[in-house]
Amino acid sequence: MSDRLANSPFAKRFGLTTPIALAPMALASGGELAAACAKAGALGLIGGGYGDPGWTQREYGIAAQALSTQPEAAAQLGCGFITWRMKEDRSALDYVLDRERPPAAIMLSFGDPSELARDIVARGVPLICQIQTMAQLPQAVDAGASVIVGQGVEAGGHGMKSAQGRSTFTFVPEIADWLAAHAPHVDLLAAGGVADGRGLAAAMTLGADGALIGSRLWATQESLAADAAIAEAVQAGGDDTARSGVFDILREKNWPAEYDFRALRNALHRKWENRLDELRADPEAAIADYKAGVAAQDYSRAHVTVGEGTGLISENASATQVIEAITYQAGNFFR
Amino acid sequence: MSDRLANSPFAKRFGLTTPIALAPMALASGGELAAACAKAGALGLIGGGYGDPGWTQREYGIAAQALSTQPEAAAQLGCGFITWRMKEDRSALDYVLDRERPPAAIMLSFGDPSELARDIVARGVPLICQIQTMAQLPQAVDAGASVIVGQGVEAGGHGMKSAQGRSTFTFVPEIADWLAAHAPHVDLLAAGGVADGRGLAAAMTLGADGALIGSRLWATQESLAADAAIAEAVQAGGDDTARSGVFDILREKNWPAEYDFRALRNALHRKWENRLDELRADPEAAIADYKAGVAAQDYSRAHVTVGEGTGLISENASATQVIEAITYQAGNFFR
Repeated sequence: MSDRLANSPFAKRFGLTTPIALAPMALASGGELAAACAKAGALGLIGGGYGDPGWTQREYGIAAQALSTQPEAAAQLGCGFITWRMKEDRSALDYVLDRERPPAAIMLSFGDPSELARDIVARGVPLICQIQTMAQLPQAVDAGASVIVGQGVEAGGHGMKSAQGRSTFTFVPEIADWLAAHAPHVDLLAAGGVADGRGLAAAMTLGADGALIGSRLWATQESLAADAAIAEAVQAGGDDTARSGVFDILREKNWPAEYDFRALRNALHRKWENRLDELRADPEAAIADYKAGVAAQDYSRAHVTVGEGTGLISENASATQVIEAITYQAGNFFR
Repeated sequence: MSDRLANSPFAKRFGLTTPIALAPMALASGGELAAACAKAGALGLIGGGYGDPGWTQREYGIAAQALSTQPEAAAQLGCGFITWRMKEDRSALDYVLDRERPPAAIMLSFGDPSELARDIVARGVPLICQIQTMAQLPQAVDAGASVIVGQGVEAGGHGMKSAQGRSTFTFVPEIADWLAAHAPHVDLLAAGGVADGRGLAAAMTLGADGALIGSRLWATQESLAADAAIAEAVQAGGDDTARSGVFDILREKNWPAEYDFRALRNALHRKWENRLDELRADPEAAIADYKAGVAAQDYSRAHVTVGEGTGLISENASATQVIEAITYQAGNFFR
């Protein structure tokens, strides 16, 4: 284990052995994956996502149970939520905050965190705020964030549209410079494109204290992603993903206009990617096509939620193996 | 000087003391800037761009004159061209190839390089091919490229549209893995977002042998960019750029549909960025507005060609200072 990794301010803040956080991917980062990441020395963030309290309660329970005999790992368990959705219904957030053992951290992304942050910070729970532009940074720090996650447009799933978003490579050092000048006590994680030890080491070289990892941990045995979807991602290269609103329309998700969604650019995506207005105006047949694809695990129609880093994923491994391999490879750069 | 930098295969191939190449930016990378980069130990690529033979001849002459008493630095002078434009008129390329002292390298970008590459390679001139997707990589290697430049969408100026393009952070390691398996003798440079020593070190951590640097060397005293334009870039943050076809329409450039252009998102860009069809259909008034802006050095209308890395540029320094600072800072990561 490289000292540089274990001594990162982010790792020390949460008692981790490696400066990695599991991205709280809605419907993929369940209790089993979060627990596996915590056991491997990372921060395990359950993907509370759209805020179904039953889902969050069940998955949080699975993780707590899996870690019941390992109090150190249990202290590395947290949860992430979609900010704009929590403003509509925060019962899942309240469930997590009201547990006897408080979460290691709550992560918020996609919206102004200020109001929700007050409750989180008042309870002494560390707040992690994911941002997509420099313009969002002062607000997140003012809200009381202990950790900023800078998410580049290469990330899978939701993020800022390419036209307004940032790339990890320039976003991380620009955030790092701002934090060094204005909020040096706040840690920084890179998100978007970190899928191996080179990525973790590069992110830290650019000024991050660690990385929030999505796609690479999505494609693991403990993930709630279907094996057949993971197999598609393993085959795919980084050229094979695209950002658009296609899958949000097909999934009938009401996302704010500035965000869209990166996934594999499958046949259904290609069919609609240049006809979004038409799809929005009359989505019924396409939604039926998509739902049939999901039911049949036909990934020419169903979405496979990975980012550009999918080109660096060559197997469906265990989360433990993934975190160990990333940590080992990154550590070699800092010897 | 860190051994890791001077011993990079790319640096050794060209006898450089630092693994940096000046991006051959059309109308910015003139003879003075290319000569300054070569003197500082980097590869100085003149921006032959659209292939005006008079411009290339003049700027190449300026560089050769500036390096006339320094044969080692003179051997680090090359030129870059826009592939699709050379297919229309290759006289500027032929001028460079026919010089008594052959160029250190010719770089081609934006189009299938195969045909032009034959002449370049047959003369023993090292070929550098810039690519924007993994799909372009086998073709570039087959064409005889000694060096691949992987350009991410965060780069300033022309590049692949965001919808099809790649980000530096994932593109570099994916190219590196492919080259290691299929063409280990070919070197790799990262382009797009490398603006300081953190970026150079991160690019090398991701698997590159060095970096092709545009914006940071555009904003130098030796650049042909106007001081007033550089002042705008120094003030700007990385959120302040955008990719689109706006400036190509205003400049009446006939670029292939897959490419567009990143620059500061100024008032004229904002006016048209969501109305490209309208602008294409009736561009006259907007072109007049743009040309008046250029004539007046009014950068609310004229384009300022920088990438997302502009947020990491805080002064208009000399190219020598820039290369020394990047090399020093990157070297510290490899001690």
